[in-house]
Amino acid sequence: MRNFDEKNITDAVIARLADSPSPRVQQISASLVRHLHDFVREIEPTQAEWEQAIDFLTRTGQMCSSTRQEFILLSDALGVSMLVDAINHRLPGTATETTVLGPFYVQHAPEVARGTRIAGPGEGPALLIEGSVRSVDGQPLADASVDIWHADDAGFYDVQKDGAKLSGRARVRTDADGNFWVIGAVPAAYPIPNDGPVGQMLDAQGRHPFRPAHVHFMVAAPGHETLVTHLFLAVSDYLDSDVVFGVKDSLIEMLGTAAPGTTPYGAVVETPMPVLRRDFVLGRGLSGAAA
Amino acid sequence: MRNFDEKNITDAVIARLADSPSPRVQQISASLVRHLHDFVREIEPTQAEWEQAIDFLTRTGQMCSSTRQEFILLSDALGVSMLVDAINHRLPGTATETTVLGPFYVQHAPEVARGTRIAGPGEGPALLIEGSVRSVDGQPLADASVDIWHADDAGFYDVQKDGAKLSGRARVRTDADGNFWVIGAVPAAYPIPNDGPVGQMLDAQGRHPFRPAHVHFMVAAPGHETLVTHLFLAVSDYLDSDVVFGVKDSLIEMLGTAAPGTTPYGAVVETPMPVLRRDFVLGRGLSGAAA
Repeated sequence: MRNFDEKNITDAVIARLADSPSPRVQQISASLVRHLHDFVREIEPTQAEWEQAIDFLTRTGQMCSSTRQEFILLSDALGVSMLVDAINHRLPGTATETTVLGPFYVQHAPEVARGTRIAGPGEGPALLIEGSVRSVDGQPLADASVDIWHADDAGFYDVQKDGAKLSGRARVRTDADGNFWVIGAVPAAYPIPNDGPVGQMLDAQGRHPFRPAHVHFMVAAPGHETLVTHLFLAVSDYLDSDVVFGVKDSLIEMLGTAAPGTTPYGAVVETPMPVLRRDFVLGRGLSGAAA
Repeated sequence: MRNFDEKNITDAVIARLADSPSPRVQQISASLVRHLHDFVREIEPTQAEWEQAIDFLTRTGQMCSSTRQEFILLSDALGVSMLVDAINHRLPGTATETTVLGPFYVQHAPEVARGTRIAGPGEGPALLIEGSVRSVDGQPLADASVDIWHADDAGFYDVQKDGAKLSGRARVRTDADGNFWVIGAVPAAYPIPNDGPVGQMLDAQGRHPFRPAHVHFMVAAPGHETLVTHLFLAVSDYLDSDVVFGVKDSLIEMLGTAAPGTTPYGAVVETPMPVLRRDFVLGRGLSGAAA
């Protein structure tokens, strides 16, 4: 086969996939080629625009490092991450809703005892983060793993700072009643890192780079679907224009005030502090088997 | 806006483009989002597959260097480069047909005198490369710029070799009659660089990585469209399965034999050697204004 033109090249590329050893690779590749070619035919890029696209993708890859994932930012900013999240979480109605993982998750964060202060005093006013983990049938899940990570009150995550000492981040286990609590800091709304290609794209698209203030959670328990979500602070700006399209009404929380004493979750409070509370509900499934 | 699901997120992302200062950026971005989301909805990637895609794109960017352009290889191998080429070259019937630029073009190659030997003796049997440059109306184009580059008889370009001394590559000018000639080497068919992500993709798709033997040309003259094309050797393997879909019948040439003496193009031949000949025809246009 030769002499490909604007019309017949798409079928020619797809025909070349006939010997793929993986039906799934063949399916994904054929779909990619069809949609990518349709996109090119629709916009009719000049050669210079094609070169700009090659350069943009190259710089996006080269911006990635152990503490920066520019392609995840790109996926987030184009709504792809939330779309993939939605496709993978057609959950029973009572399970807690999901949202994007984001680029600042760190695998194997240190496990801490319940009640540990996980954010330094320079990172914002202390915030009690407490809650419970239950299965969809209401059963409390003891010894569930709860990863928590959040920005500081200037809007930066630990991994964005020089020295990269982990902070505002930990894993805690639920107690026998399925409860957990740690002391973090009240996070600020922040712009996603916008000194790279994705920031240039947002500028060109006339978009701001901000996310509303939020705390990330990844909750895992054997026999249940691992839950990846945030809680958004109800007082934050940008709830209606999150640059990564991650906000859901069910994930917005008002901060309360924890009075001195013991909270219903078992946290011991010495001085009054703001509190972010949530009872998480996990769907049944296998993804959290190794929690 | 919040609470995005599999259906409404596409319109939500497109609505976010309303304030773009550039109508073209807005158009391209909206089309990209629509086709990309349709692709994702069609294949329903798992989270693990999405992570693989992020990792693939990241590694593709990080494989790029001053002598390696993995994203151009990816565009080539998915037929996108040839599609963009076709869209940008809806030429009058008599102009020479175009094909892909490829990843081995070097800007500002040294200009050499006609007749210069541009490939070293270790790079394959000498090959006389000669021809003419004319406008679509038949007028010879004097002082046109002809960039020529080709692989050696082992299938490697100069820039792929350690040390990276330019070879098998030069720019020559046409004489008063529109003729040019240099002495290169007979190139071999070769695999595109397949030790990176694109090679892994081809393996997964069950495809070979080879291109048929060819010589690249970029021909530019004031008042004419710059011509980017190859001539393919008629005896080569892979003419019907070029990994980048670049072969056109009109670009395939039989090698002749140049006898000692002066060729019709003005080349002086001392010992018989194979010859690759072509009369290139450029369409009228502006892209070659600065040749």
